[in-house]
Amino acid sequence: MTDLLKRRTLIAELSAELVGTFILILFGVGVVAQVVAGGIGDHDSIAWAWGLGVTLGVYAAARLSGAHLNPAVTIALAVFRGFSWGKVAPYALAQTVGAFLAALVVRWNYAEVIAKVDPGHTIKTQGIFSTLPGNGSAPVHTGGALRDQIIGTAILMLLILAITDVRNTSPGMNLGPLLIGLLVVAIGMAWGTNAGYAINPARDFGPRLASFVTGYGTAWRDQYGELYFWVPIIGPIIGALIGGAIYDGLIGRHLPVSDEDAEPGRTTETPEIAAEHTR
Amino acid sequence: MTDLLKRRTLIAELSAELVGTFILILFGVGVVAQVVAGGIGDHDSIAWAWGLGVTLGVYAAARLSGAHLNPAVTIALAVFRGFSWGKVAPYALAQTVGAFLAALVVRWNYAEVIAKVDPGHTIKTQGIFSTLPGNGSAPVHTGGALRDQIIGTAILMLLILAITDVRNTSPGMNLGPLLIGLLVVAIGMAWGTNAGYAINPARDFGPRLASFVTGYGTAWRDQYGELYFWVPIIGPIIGALIGGAIYDGLIGRHLPVSDEDAEPGRTTETPEIAAEHTR
Amino acid sequence: MTDLLKRRTLIAELSAELVGTFILILFGVGVVAQVVAGGIGDHDSIAWAWGLGVTLGVYAAARLSGAHLNPAVTIALAVFRGFSWGKVAPYALAQTVGAFLAALVVRWNYAEVIAKVDPGHTIKTQGIFSTLPGNGSAPVHTGGALRDQIIGTAILMLLILAITDVRNTSPGMNLGPLLIGLLVVAIGMAWGTNAGYAINPARDFGPRLASFVTGYGTAWRDQYGELYFWVPIIGPIIGALIGGAIYDGLIGRHLPVSDEDAEPGRTTETPEIAAEHTR
Amino acid sequence: MTDLLKRRTLIAELSAELVGTFILILFGVGVVAQVVAGGIGDHDSIAWAWGLGVTLGVYAAARLSGAHLNPAVTIALAVFRGFSWGKVAPYALAQTVGAFLAALVVRWNYAEVIAKVDPGHTIKTQGIFSTLPGNGSAPVHTGGALRDQIIGTAILMLLILAITDVRNTSPGMNLGPLLIGLLVVAIGMAWGTNAGYAINPARDFGPRLASFVTGYGTAWRDQYGELYFWVPIIGPIIGALIGGAIYDGLIGRHLPVSDEDAEPGRTTETPEIAAEHTR
Repeated sequence: MTDLLKRRTLIAELSAELVGTFILILFGVGVVAQVVAGGIGDHDSIAWAWGLGVTLGVYAAARLSGAHLNPAVTIALAVFRGFSWGKVAPYALAQTVGAFLAALVVRWNYAEVIAKVDPGHTIKTQGIFSTLPGNGSAPVHTGGALRDQIIGTAILMLLILAITDVRNTSPGMNLGPLLIGLLVVAIGMAWGTNAGYAINPARDFGPRLASFVTGYGTAWRDQYGELYFWVPIIGPIIGALIGGAIYDGLIGRHLPVSDEDAEPGRTTETPEIAAEHTR
Repeated sequence: MTDLLKRRTLIAELSAELVGTFILILFGVGVVAQVVAGGIGDHDSIAWAWGLGVTLGVYAAARLSGAHLNPAVTIALAVFRGFSWGKVAPYALAQTVGAFLAALVVRWNYAEVIAKVDPGHTIKTQGIFSTLPGNGSAPVHTGGALRDQIIGTAILMLLILAITDVRNTSPGMNLGPLLIGLLVVAIGMAWGTNAGYAINPARDFGPRLASFVTGYGTAWRDQYGELYFWVPIIGPIIGALIGGAIYDGLIGRHLPVSDEDAEPGRTTETPEIAAEHTR
Repeated sequence: MTDLLKRRTLIAELSAELVGTFILILFGVGVVAQVVAGGIGDHDSIAWAWGLGVTLGVYAAARLSGAHLNPAVTIALAVFRGFSWGKVAPYALAQTVGAFLAALVVRWNYAEVIAKVDPGHTIKTQGIFSTLPGNGSAPVHTGGALRDQIIGTAILMLLILAITDVRNTSPGMNLGPLLIGLLVVAIGMAWGTNAGYAINPARDFGPRLASFVTGYGTAWRDQYGELYFWVPIIGPIIGALIGGAIYDGLIGRHLPVSDEDAEPGRTTETPEIAAEHTR
Repeated sequence: MTDLLKRRTLIAELSAELVGTFILILFGVGVVAQVVAGGIGDHDSIAWAWGLGVTLGVYAAARLSGAHLNPAVTIALAVFRGFSWGKVAPYALAQTVGAFLAALVVRWNYAEVIAKVDPGHTIKTQGIFSTLPGNGSAPVHTGGALRDQIIGTAILMLLILAITDVRNTSPGMNLGPLLIGLLVVAIGMAWGTNAGYAINPARDFGPRLASFVTGYGTAWRDQYGELYFWVPIIGPIIGALIGGAIYDGLIGRHLPVSDEDAEPGRTTETPEIAAEHTR
């Protein structure tokens, strides 16, 4: 491939990652705004709309970029599936920019209801944009939240690899995005108490930055005053590596290698058709 | 094609658009009546039944007409996919008539519960039929609702094009209607606070007219007394154009042109098999 | 086909109709018992479990009998799709027996909670088994309920024909049962206020009889003392005929007749593979 | 097949059963912890996340082991589908170990919220891990719970066989896991009142043991002081046998035997591709 073609391909990939993550956050941050500030809906609608946002973002982006939509997934695919290391940083940047822009759109559209329930733009509505620890009945601090994010993202990555592995019981390219979305619905219902299931550095940092530049001084710390923004970045990266290792060690290594084993994420020259994606 | 054949084809298309939008509104206005007047269900059931109504209407109509079910979608397909401009007005009319008739059926069947909770047929139950601004914790006026409708319909159109694009990760003809419905479920959960997610001029104007002719003097204005009916007409049309431009500019232009690229909406002589549809 | 083969085929068909309707009612009456007597769940779980019960019953029965699971559907298929009139009564009987037996299982398993919340087995828990009019905010009497059942079953039949028509945008044999179930979920959310969406004579009469023989003296009348059991029998039959006529008149007649047009329901000698089914 | 190959195959199968059941319990016990201890979500989210956990566990394991994920299913497949009796105990052990380990992960991650709402680790939060009788409005004792578990698992097994039978209306390998999950969603909504729908000895015993070794002295008895742990073991085994007999007696025997009838579960030498799976 010529350098020009390579560059055009990379632009297409980054464009898809940006748009896919943009869509994900339009629904994800949008639904939390609707519930927390708008007062319409409940925890169930949050879980469903986040998951459906993943599904929709993946359908939009998968053909061009593989629809990672998550820097932790991108890194794990580099480690376990030969995804080009040179593309990891550009992918992560495109994902974060997409998330940032979408959060600005939500911030703008829900300005009235946010201003109504939290005129000072404080920690009270910070959770619309970025995750906080201890959403349940008991306080959970940085350590517990880090543990939670590692576990949650390990579950995510283990199942992304399972669902998109054509050697396994794959739902297929046309259904994969739906199943990845349902995976995130289930994570939201079962693994959201301690740290709001960020499980994605771009999903958390992009909207966090968007809230900061639009008046939220509370963006970088948790409700206890601790510096928190790094937890949903570091935790997911560690978790995705653990999840990938579990899948390959306990399932992937036992699966036959087929002829058609042009595994998603392995080719680096052409826009990937893969279905590795996530929240 | 002879003129006679053309005419028969157009009749089939309009019949399908009418029936498809009729089905959509039977469920959409039906569920709001059940929740608001009947007192059964909640915001989640509204989001689900609207979305499933889209899915069902699209399955019924897609083979014959492409199942636009939404004038804003029809216009955007004319601009971005070569859909015949000569058919835009007939399609929009058929969609609006279908929505109008379905709303009459709901109005008739739920006459008892509506009369019970709102004997004067006032703004209190106007929202069963047509959208109003500011459903959440804060008032939102015409300007904010227009902004909201532009954004919401841009999201809708961007994803309709993504899901139905055979060059992208298409769920396929058999699953496309389900995914389009889930898209509307997610929009209802995340983008319904400010203006009740009309995102469709026919969905809003048809039932609005039906409520007016059956005793709702409040049909044309919002709860603040402002003329409102034009917002869910103009907003969606602008939004669909923006959404289409985003998809083609950031995703569509990077996708390969396949041989089988008889894109939905492009042929105008035969009943379309396309899956462009929406609420 | 020899008489012996014909008879063996009919036995297989009736066995499938019985089992399919048995499954449907295990979930449908089961979920209402869990919510009303058990106190676990809400209107949303009722809508979902009824619909999923349809999906599951259809998967179990479709290959052998076409999975009508509903006498109104069977009659409409005889009128509009050439289903053998000679089989209509046996099908309806098998469906009703299946529903009756399943209701007995629910009655038995939920005896403790039913006895707790309604020791006298009165109208208070009658609704676990059979439908009643006026579940919403206002009383609805026999006339209104009949109207409601006609409309609801017309919607059901119109969409069963749309979803299972291979000439239309069919979801396919493997997905059809899921979509038919989602159709019933949506009907439950939007069309359940006035008469509890029986939309199926077997679904209503079988469990009604089961409640009567197990101690419910209130089985045949509504809460106003009117004889009611005939409404969810007559209404659905009329409704299914109207729905079938709408589909064929406005959609079906415009669709091409394909070579492979061995339409479900049309063959009467062999176990049908069709996917016409319903609640 | 050589002994070495046989052994390697068995290791792959057991690894898949362990991981699949591990995934199932991560979501199943996870969601109950989130609702009961975390205070986030409701009965609907419990039903959905349990079901989606089944779906996800099956996608991960089905290609290698058939994804039984449930000793009662494994036994029924040995009885009705020729699954190797020699593998029944190893499968059941792997399933139980997977469930045990996943429950430990949940126990660890939700330690803070559990300690907050139930510092003594009593029967109050025992239900996060293992099932108890009488969750509804009335007490149900061992006998009623046993009856309930027999019925519930009979329904489960009847429908697993229906959904995975390629001679029937199969959703196909790619959709089967989704449908099996929706089956468990429906069981949770309709059949959870009396005994918390264990319907799976490994799902119940593994987490029960995990709770016992981490401080729950109440693990083996119910809230009335009766020894209870055996009910969700014996009940499901009996129920699965009844459900299998109903399916084969009323549906399976009427279905044609196709050439491609390499039925899942029948081959015992190679990793099974079957889709028999369950909670």
